[in-house]
Amino acid sequence: MSEKIRSFSFDEYVAAVQKFHSYAAPGVLIGGFIVELAYRHLPKEGMFDIICETDKCLPDAATLLTPCTIGNGWLKIMNNGKFALIIYDKVTGDGIRVFVDTQKLDKWPEIKNWFLNLKPKKEQDSVLLQNQIRDAGTSILSFQTVKVDLTKIKPKHTDGYGICPNCKESYNIKDGGLCLACQGKMPYQVTNDR
Amino acid sequence: MSEKIRSFSFDEYVAAVQKFHSYAAPGVLIGGFIVELAYRHLPKEGMFDIICETDKCLPDAATLLTPCTIGNGWLKIMNNGKFALIIYDKVTGDGIRVFVDTQKLDKWPEIKNWFLNLKPKKEQDSVLLQNQIRDAGTSILSFQTVKVDLTKIKPKHTDGYGICPNCKESYNIKDGGLCLACQGKMPYQVTNDR
Repeated sequence: MSEKIRSFSFDEYVAAVQKFHSYAAPGVLIGGFIVELAYRHLPKEGMFDIICETDKCLPDAATLLTPCTIGNGWLKIMNNGKFALIIYDKVTGDGIRVFVDTQKLDKWPEIKNWFLNLKPKKEQDSVLLQNQIRDAGTSILSFQTVKVDLTKIKPKHTDGYGICPNCKESYNIKDGGLCLACQGKMPYQVTNDR
Repeated sequence: MSEKIRSFSFDEYVAAVQKFHSYAAPGVLIGGFIVELAYRHLPKEGMFDIICETDKCLPDAATLLTPCTIGNGWLKIMNNGKFALIIYDKVTGDGIRVFVDTQKLDKWPEIKNWFLNLKPKKEQDSVLLQNQIRDAGTSILSFQTVKVDLTKIKPKHTDGYGICPNCKESYNIKDGGLCLACQGKMPYQVTNDR
């Protein structure tokens, strides 16, 4: 019997991930157990925000399983390439950080192959990998209690906006006298203005 | 009769946004019309990626209405503070960029008050605002055809990973000999290692 992921059975979570993420990516599946383990150690009550330490897969697990999204600002990505997230009380900064513990992967060779890129992707066995993720559950994870420095978390509404004198769109005035697009710093060219 | 937002009626979309984003934020509602207008001008067939030019609200509209998410990498945020997004063919880079056109807001004073922060939030009328957003639909938006420079879009799997010699977690080796957390560059302190 595999561990539950919040209110989901593992199979239900796989289906939800397929729908949301377009495929049952191993990272989003492990991400489900990461979120689950964090909640087991969080207080029952509280208003929580999330810091996700990678932009790969894990933000989607947080989005699926919590009220925190990128767009509402309660989920922030601070990318240091670690497959870890912190769920913390937005008032006190006290939180739980959960990460994939590379020292717990030896029992699960296909997870280890995938997580540490030990084999070319095409030689990996995706069915075996998913089964090992299900059976391993939270056992490949570790957690820490952490204190988030709330003074270093950017509040949601602090940017100053102005109208770019060239394109007339509203933009972030900290970027300068013109918006970044009119400065040629965005990776696209307008080919036709309607 | 208000415009549809992809397969949703306006009221259905409001309900979906309440569930996903935790409240029917004006930015996610307008974001729905932004995505809708982009699709009207995109080819029927194609594999599309998205660049979102703000991290506020709009990424959630894209996540709700398209297969693109932050976690699967098809949705990228390149924040220049503009309430705009680009949906583009991931093979050719040809796309449609949609933005809130500040020159079309005069007919909708409550949208203008909100979008340009002309009134303190507590003096804004949220019901009137939502009704104006519904009635304005795509009429407050403009679009452009654009060519995205795919050579400037970071592919999904290019980072090199290593094991941090201090914490033993997998991390992005471009950050240096230790992970950013062990360099003291993340906004949290570990208070207890389990």
